[in-house]
Amino acid sequence: MSTLAINLERLKSDLLSLFEIGYNPETKGVTRLGFTEADTRAKQWLKERFEHEGFWSYIDQAGNVVGRAKAEQPSQVVATGSHIDSVISGGMFDGTLGVLAGLEVLRVLRDHDITPATPVEVYAFSEEEGRFGGMMGVQALIGELTPDWLMSAHDVNGVKLQDEMRACGLDPMRALEARVDPGYFKSYIELHIEQGPVLDTIRKPIGVVESISGVYKWIVRLIGKSNHAGTAPMNMRSDAFMGLANFANEIPRIIAEEGSDKSRLTVGKVDLKPGHAHTVPGEVEFTLVGRDTDCDVMQALADSCRKVLSAIARKHNLMFEFEQMSWLEPQPMSDTIIKLIAEQATRLDLPHEHMPSGAGHDAQHMAKVTQAGMIFVPSVNGISHAPDEWTHWQDIEKGANVLLHSLHKLATE
Amino acid sequence: MSTLAINLERLKSDLLSLFEIGYNPETKGVTRLGFTEADTRAKQWLKERFEHEGFWSYIDQAGNVVGRAKAEQPSQVVATGSHIDSVISGGMFDGTLGVLAGLEVLRVLRDHDITPATPVEVYAFSEEEGRFGGMMGVQALIGELTPDWLMSAHDVNGVKLQDEMRACGLDPMRALEARVDPGYFKSYIELHIEQGPVLDTIRKPIGVVESISGVYKWIVRLIGKSNHAGTAPMNMRSDAFMGLANFANEIPRIIAEEGSDKSRLTVGKVDLKPGHAHTVPGEVEFTLVGRDTDCDVMQALADSCRKVLSAIARKHNLMFEFEQMSWLEPQPMSDTIIKLIAEQATRLDLPHEHMPSGAGHDAQHMAKVTQAGMIFVPSVNGISHAPDEWTHWQDIEKGANVLLHSLHKLATE
Repeated sequence: MSTLAINLERLKSDLLSLFEIGYNPETKGVTRLGFTEADTRAKQWLKERFEHEGFWSYIDQAGNVVGRAKAEQPSQVVATGSHIDSVISGGMFDGTLGVLAGLEVLRVLRDHDITPATPVEVYAFSEEEGRFGGMMGVQALIGELTPDWLMSAHDVNGVKLQDEMRACGLDPMRALEARVDPGYFKSYIELHIEQGPVLDTIRKPIGVVESISGVYKWIVRLIGKSNHAGTAPMNMRSDAFMGLANFANEIPRIIAEEGSDKSRLTVGKVDLKPGHAHTVPGEVEFTLVGRDTDCDVMQALADSCRKVLSAIARKHNLMFEFEQMSWLEPQPMSDTIIKLIAEQATRLDLPHEHMPSGAGHDAQHMAKVTQAGMIFVPSVNGISHAPDEWTHWQDIEKGANVLLHSLHKLATE
Repeated sequence: MSTLAINLERLKSDLLSLFEIGYNPETKGVTRLGFTEADTRAKQWLKERFEHEGFWSYIDQAGNVVGRAKAEQPSQVVATGSHIDSVISGGMFDGTLGVLAGLEVLRVLRDHDITPATPVEVYAFSEEEGRFGGMMGVQALIGELTPDWLMSAHDVNGVKLQDEMRACGLDPMRALEARVDPGYFKSYIELHIEQGPVLDTIRKPIGVVESISGVYKWIVRLIGKSNHAGTAPMNMRSDAFMGLANFANEIPRIIAEEGSDKSRLTVGKVDLKPGHAHTVPGEVEFTLVGRDTDCDVMQALADSCRKVLSAIARKHNLMFEFEQMSWLEPQPMSDTIIKLIAEQATRLDLPHEHMPSGAGHDAQHMAKVTQAGMIFVPSVNGISHAPDEWTHWQDIEKGANVLLHSLHKLATE
């Protein structure tokens, strides 16, 4: 069994071919937003890649591309995959690696004449990047979509999901038919680039994901009083920005007191009003995104942020209000799968690190219906969602081999 | 002499009439940007007001409206005034009060058959609000304009000063001819609303301006690294916004250590890149405006800001750069005029406060060529440059009476 190994050249060739669909030579990035023409071409290309290899493939009513060795319907599968849609001007590996490594796993099993007891099924889940505010493909599969959402979902430009689906030849309401009985999935493993700096920094090729962080997003407003920056003495100001600066300064303390090494608190967007150099800002609106892998810790972080903001608002004579835009619970990965992945990495002599996933992935939804796990490979400088997203080919190979052996174990045991 | 008093009803009537020119019933604000049609109509209206009262008035080549009791050219004048241009959607009193109170002083002197040894001359300096990046009218008068500036000056929309002047029937190059021999001005006093909260807070009707603050404006950039807000651990970030927040938090300390009670440091405009909720901001550009009434203190504040920003940049692994957009030295008022104004306020039994002016005024330029001073009256809630700018009529009257008696003293002594 230890002779099983993926063929990096085949995988590389697939990754490079798929990268051409939606590639922009000017930005050097790839743009395949869900349910756009480039996305549809990519799905078609993928289906043909499966078929070209003699595998069976179909695109379901939610636009998910599915591939497996044989056409006959199994009663249960070991699932793997990820997504092939991208953000605007993204990189080569985000999502595509997990899907194309799955295809390569099918080829390796075929090449070794292995017909596992439980077939391996490869998914390219549609619309993972959230153009329409969710992870539409995998959510359809596990039965989380509603007719109402399908009819009302739209992108930031107001383009409706239903119109884009129709333009791709799909009937939006029939996306509900993509739902699969949960018992169908024996397990799910997703290989993905880390999209963060940890593995690259600690120089380990394999990350074993223990949990996908929960996340909350607040829009916070601090409202004081705009004043002429020359005529208003420092002690007569209600400077909204100074309130925000005070809060931001407390973030390390909030995490030290209430959080963990997996906690993240980020102020990413700041709008000052009126936003003039010579005017004391009377109002600030900013985003606060909090994450942790533990529900209670996440709640404690949120409570502390609220208290600190209230106290600072009082001190600076500001009004404080916030709107919770979203609250997603953390999603732990399956202990069985975590253990399995770590064992395969050890067997292959690959240094690995147990770690959280700070970003969301299709696996967080699959984890609700089956035992699920994720394998990370290093992102050079932690960069992703950008044209200079990169993972060394050696690490691609190592990650894909851990995926191969993990799936092989699950499928044959 | 103590029987001299301004007629509030006349002054009020003039202020209300002028407010109608450029008034917008929707915003309730007035818009008379320099060298626009509304500004030109206001100048014409003012000239006619002088003439209607039997005074002599003219508009010079820089668009300054000048008025005095008699046409004959004096060898020296006691000057007063301010401006009648406005910001976009400004209030009733900013600038107009100083000009129309000057007109009222001429009327009071006439009504009492007083022909002072040195005539009082009233100025409405053109373009004080800086649409073209200066205080064009008063600078023309004191000989600070250059042909090059006149040809190149433009507003934020790229509209050229020279074109706007021509549209108002003025020959731009002839603005240089508006220069007056410095010896012509015996002294200058300007009555203005405070545009800040001090007098309103301490409940005193009269401010005696000791100095107009110097001001510097920096555009500061802190450059770190953008990261996914979920995948980048807190200790692996180069978060540009956290650098700014740290700096802003040091502002009270910087002022406590290097500044005075007249120091102001303001962050008024902040731009984060990329400015997404889920991305650690890799870059921030912000404005820093510093003010003090003392040159050395201003320099110490600037030095300290630079050192603190450098240290924070090192700590957060950021690149720090800044551009000094402007540096205007503080302008002290004349001790003689400060004393005179305070004496008149005392004589009229009006509580007064010695204070700096945090905003710029025509007086700061007049102070370069003659002994100059300013009288402030309270701004309700410190508001200015907005439709709800307000000063109680009783305070208008008190301020105008202090102006009247100060000018009378200077003109007759």
